[in-house]
Amino acid sequence: MNALGKHLLLELKGCDREVLNDIGFLREALLAAAVGAGATVLGESFHQFKPQGVSGVVIIAESHICIHTWPEYGYAAADIFTCGSTVQPEKVAEIILGKLGGKNHSIAEMPIGVLDTQLV
Amino acid sequence: MNALGKHLLLELKGCDREVLNDIGFLREALLAAAVGAGATVLGESFHQFKPQGVSGVVIIAESHICIHTWPEYGYAAADIFTCGSTVQPEKVAEIILGKLGGKNHSIAEMPIGVLDTQLV
Repeated sequence: MNALGKHLLLELKGCDREVLNDIGFLREALLAAAVGAGATVLGESFHQFKPQGVSGVVIIAESHICIHTWPEYGYAAADIFTCGSTVQPEKVAEIILGKLGGKNHSIAEMPIGVLDTQLV
Repeated sequence: MNALGKHLLLELKGCDREVLNDIGFLREALLAAAVGAGATVLGESFHQFKPQGVSGVVIIAESHICIHTWPEYGYAAADIFTCGSTVQPEKVAEIILGKLGGKNHSIAEMPIGVLDTQLV
């Protein structure tokens, strides 16, 4: 399939609630996942919600990695969008899973930019 | 369905190539979409690629809006992730579509955080 990239939608359930509310830990985890998968980090934006929860994104040269956490449910949703073949989004997901733990998780994969040649 | 949020994956094809390479226009379009849908903007990160293409994200209190463009294919992929019921992601998508145009588009909707009560 001629796709420009892949979008992995990762859900983590049963995570440690303190971890999911620790913006510094989550920032380090996403940056480590980006670097560990060979991505080039271009920018980032993280935000701590009150009373709880963190949203964060790391823009990489190969697209982006986002996370949103709901500590009150032990739940986090991450999405990993990569284009090209240099960075494997599965590797990014593996590192995030290793750092955040959780009782279980799911990953949905969506191809991005399956182009109809008549439009390009 | 008891979901924490919704994730819309928007693909635009047949867009104007200059528009897709205009970081200032794309930044304004995403911010306008956020504000127009009643979202609260918390942060942003945009990047211009060489020779072409733009990646950008706007972090909103209700989650995020991202875009990645491939001007060489007239193609853009946006994802709109919202939690809660204040902001309708369909409204964000409508504003982005209105600003970017394109010959056709598709929207896939993914529910986020359909929690199993035994884990919360």
